[in-house]
Amino acid sequence: MKWTRKDILHLEGLEQKEIEFILNTAKPMKEVLLRPIKKLPTLRGKAVFNLFFEASTRTRTSFETAAKILGADTASLAVAQSSVSKGETLLDTARTLEAMQPDVVVIRHASSGAAHFLAKELKAGVINAGDGQHEHPSQALLDLFTMKEHLGSVAGRKILLVGDILHSRVARSNVWALKNMGAEVVLVGPPTLLTPEIKAWGVKTSYNLDQELPGADVIMALRLQLERQQAGLLPSLREYSQLYGITAERLKRTEKPSLVMHPGPINRGVELESQVANSAQAVIEEQVTNGVAVRMALMYLLMGGTGHVVD
Amino acid sequence: MKWTRKDILHLEGLEQKEIEFILNTAKPMKEVLLRPIKKLPTLRGKAVFNLFFEASTRTRTSFETAAKILGADTASLAVAQSSVSKGETLLDTARTLEAMQPDVVVIRHASSGAAHFLAKELKAGVINAGDGQHEHPSQALLDLFTMKEHLGSVAGRKILLVGDILHSRVARSNVWALKNMGAEVVLVGPPTLLTPEIKAWGVKTSYNLDQELPGADVIMALRLQLERQQAGLLPSLREYSQLYGITAERLKRTEKPSLVMHPGPINRGVELESQVANSAQAVIEEQVTNGVAVRMALMYLLMGGTGHVVD
Amino acid sequence: MKWTRKDILHLEGLEQKEIEFILNTAKPMKEVLLRPIKKLPTLRGKAVFNLFFEASTRTRTSFETAAKILGADTASLAVAQSSVSKGETLLDTARTLEAMQPDVVVIRHASSGAAHFLAKELKAGVINAGDGQHEHPSQALLDLFTMKEHLGSVAGRKILLVGDILHSRVARSNVWALKNMGAEVVLVGPPTLLTPEIKAWGVKTSYNLDQELPGADVIMALRLQLERQQAGLLPSLREYSQLYGITAERLKRTEKPSLVMHPGPINRGVELESQVANSAQAVIEEQVTNGVAVRMALMYLLMGGTGHVVD
Repeated sequence: MKWTRKDILHLEGLEQKEIEFILNTAKPMKEVLLRPIKKLPTLRGKAVFNLFFEASTRTRTSFETAAKILGADTASLAVAQSSVSKGETLLDTARTLEAMQPDVVVIRHASSGAAHFLAKELKAGVINAGDGQHEHPSQALLDLFTMKEHLGSVAGRKILLVGDILHSRVARSNVWALKNMGAEVVLVGPPTLLTPEIKAWGVKTSYNLDQELPGADVIMALRLQLERQQAGLLPSLREYSQLYGITAERLKRTEKPSLVMHPGPINRGVELESQVANSAQAVIEEQVTNGVAVRMALMYLLMGGTGHVVD
Repeated sequence: MKWTRKDILHLEGLEQKEIEFILNTAKPMKEVLLRPIKKLPTLRGKAVFNLFFEASTRTRTSFETAAKILGADTASLAVAQSSVSKGETLLDTARTLEAMQPDVVVIRHASSGAAHFLAKELKAGVINAGDGQHEHPSQALLDLFTMKEHLGSVAGRKILLVGDILHSRVARSNVWALKNMGAEVVLVGPPTLLTPEIKAWGVKTSYNLDQELPGADVIMALRLQLERQQAGLLPSLREYSQLYGITAERLKRTEKPSLVMHPGPINRGVELESQVANSAQAVIEEQVTNGVAVRMALMYLLMGGTGHVVD
Repeated sequence: MKWTRKDILHLEGLEQKEIEFILNTAKPMKEVLLRPIKKLPTLRGKAVFNLFFEASTRTRTSFETAAKILGADTASLAVAQSSVSKGETLLDTARTLEAMQPDVVVIRHASSGAAHFLAKELKAGVINAGDGQHEHPSQALLDLFTMKEHLGSVAGRKILLVGDILHSRVARSNVWALKNMGAEVVLVGPPTLLTPEIKAWGVKTSYNLDQELPGADVIMALRLQLERQQAGLLPSLREYSQLYGITAERLKRTEKPSLVMHPGPINRGVELESQVANSAQAVIEEQVTNGVAVRMALMYLLMGGTGHVVD
C-alpha cells in the first residue's frame, strides 16, 4: 500500500486498511525508538512546525521527539502569546507559518474543526493534535497500537471507555477507530457526561460500570477535567470515584487480566486508584512510548517516506 | 566582494553594494528553502542565540528556521521572564550568553539602540531583529528582495509607505534602504503619525493617500498598533481605514498592477481590505518566505561562509 | 577510571577522584567549545530532556548548548504551565517523560530532594540542575574547574563564600566539593543568613568579611535574593553592601590577585561593586563558559561516552 492522504485529521472516515498501515509502520519506528542510538536520517531537510494554541507539554514533546528522531527540524510555536493575541486570524497565522516552508504542521486548537479548516487551506501536511472536543487521532492510534501489542487483534474484544465521554476528543477518536477494527465498545459514565446525542455514535452506552466490567478486555479511563464539577456536571469527586473510579477491587469483576489505560495526566484517586495505576495491568507508560512511535509513523507517511523505514 | 561587517544593525549607513551583496546571497538561499530537502551543512558547529526581549513568534521562528536549514544549532531565549526580571543589566545578560560561545546573537528589544550597544560589547555577530522604533533591517531587506523579484530594480520606482510612520521601525529601515537603491519613496499617513521630524528623513510625505496613488509601483501598508487609538493618536479605526485603508476600489487609482505589501500581522479591514489581502497583487506570504531566505543570507555572511553557497 | 554512576545529584558524597575525573573530562570539552566548529558526533541519537519546574533561562541554555554540541537532541519542558498545574504528581510527570525514551533528564525543582527522588525511580540518568536550597552540583563543578584553571590546585587555598549562605544551593555544593579537594573554606555573611545549623557543615564561619579577606585566594559572592529583605532577613541593601559588598577598596585587603567569582545574575552595587565585576580579577564569564564544558562532560559520562572524547 502507498500512503496518499496529505493530512491526519480524524479517525472517523479513515479506512481499516489505512489504520493497519499506520500501525504497521509504527512497529519498526518503535524498534528505532528503543535503540541505544535512536536516530534515522529519513526526514533530514524536512521541517515540522508544532502550532499549539492550547498548552500541552507532553503532546508537544512527543511530536517534537518523533520528528527529531527521524532527522527533521522542528519549531514549536505557543500561539497563545503570539499573533493571535494581536488580532490576526487563524488562517493568516497559518499562512504566514506555511510561507516559512514547513512540510508538516501539527496543530492543537480549542475549536473543533480548526485542523480541518487549515488542512484545506495549506499545502503542508496537517496533523490534528486535538481540536476542541472533536478528535485527537494520534492518541487513538497509539491506544490501538497498545491494545494490539497486548491482545493481538481488537476484533471482538470488549473495550470500556469510562468517564467524561461528552467532552472527550480521545473518546471520539477511539470510538471511530475501535468500531472500524471490529471491537465491542461500551461507553460508561454518569448521565450528565453521557448525553443522549452520544447514542448516535452507534455503540453501547451504560451508566453502570460494575455491570459492564465482566469480560472487559480493556478499561480505558478518561481524564476528568476537574472544572466539570464547578459546571454542575458532577455531584462530587468522591461520588464520581465511588461509581466510576477503577479500583483493584472493582477490577476483579472483569475475571480477566484486563488492560488498564489512561491518556494522562491521571488524577490519582479519581479516575484510577493509585494501586491500579501502579499495577502491571496498567499500560499507561507504554501508551506514551507508543505515542512517539505512532507519531514517527505519521510523519514518515505524510512526508513521503518511501523504501525501508529502518536504515 | 567579501563580507567584512560583524553585525547587521541598521540599513542607514549600509552601502548600496552591501545591500546588493546580501540580496544576491539570498537568491540561492531561497532556492535551497524551496527544495524538497532543505538542508545545507554550511553552518554545522555554529550556534545562533535568539535573544527576544519582546515576544515575536513569527520573527523568532523565521530566524530559527533560517539557522537550522544552514545546519547551525539554535537556542531561543525569551528574556522577559528571565534574568532581566531578576534585575540583571542588559549587558550582563548578553555577556553571560556570549560566554556560552554563540557565533551570532539575534536580538529584539523594546529600546532603540539596544542592538548597537550590544554589538559594540560582544565578539559575536549581532543581528538587530527590531529595536524599539529604530530599525528592523532584515524586514527591510526582505521587502527589498520581494520588490526586486517583481520589479527587477527599485530605482525610479514609486513606493508608498502608508500608516503609522512615526512608530514604525519597518518604515525607518525601508526608507534608508529604498533611498539608497534610488527609489522614489512617499510616506503617507495622518498628521498625528507623520510628525514634522519625519521630514528630516529626506523623502516626500503626504497626508492624502488618494493623491499619491497614481503611478505607485508598491503600496506597503504598515501595521497599525491598535493601542495607538487609546493614546489619542487616531480618531477612530473606521475613519483611519476610510482614509488610509487599502481597498480594491482605491487600488485602481494606481493604474498599474501595483504590489501590495504588509509586514504582518494584518488587521484585516483596517490597513487592508480582506479582498486586497487575498488578491494576487498582495505578496505578503512571499515576503515571509523571502524573510527566511534573507536571514539565511545574513547568517551565512556573518558566520564567515565562504565558497559556494549551495552544495 | 570508568564512570559508573547513573546520576549527578550532589557533591556531598562524590569522591575526590570522581570530581577529578569529571574535571579532566571537561578540559577537552572546553577545547571543543572554543573551536570555530564546535560539534562532536559523540551523543548522536541520544536525547536530553530539560525539565525545569523553576524558570532559568541561563542554566537551561547552558545544558541545551552542551547537549547540542555533543550531537544529542534536546527538548525543554517548562513544567510550571504544564501537567503539574493539572494536578499530576511529580513522579507521574517524570514517568511520562521517561516513557518518551530520554537518555538523560536534567531537572530543576523548588523542592530539595526532588532530583534524588526521581533518580531512584527513573532508568534515565538524572542531573540535578538545582533542587530547592539543597544542591546545584554542576555549578560547584564549574566553579572548581574555574579555580583550578587559575590556581592549579585548590588544596590549601583560602576560599571565601560571601552572602546568603542559608538559602544557597550553590554554597552547599561548593562547600562539599571544596572540602573534599582540601581547600580552606570560610563562610561569611550576616548572622541572619549564617545560622547556627550551618556550623555543622564543618567549615569556618564568620560575620566579618574584612577580617577574613587577608590571604584569600578566591572570593565567591553569592547572589542575594532581594526578596529576603522583605522577609526581614536583611536590614537594608545599603547596609548589606557596606558590610558584605565586594568593593575595589576592600579587595586590596587580600594582598593577592584574588579571583572574584559570582554564579550570576549579579546585583551590581549589592554583592559586587561594578568596578570589581568589570575588573580582570572577576572571572564571572569564564565561569559561564566553563559551565557549558562541565555540562558537556557530565552528559558525556552519563551517556556512556567511551574512547576518545575529541574526534
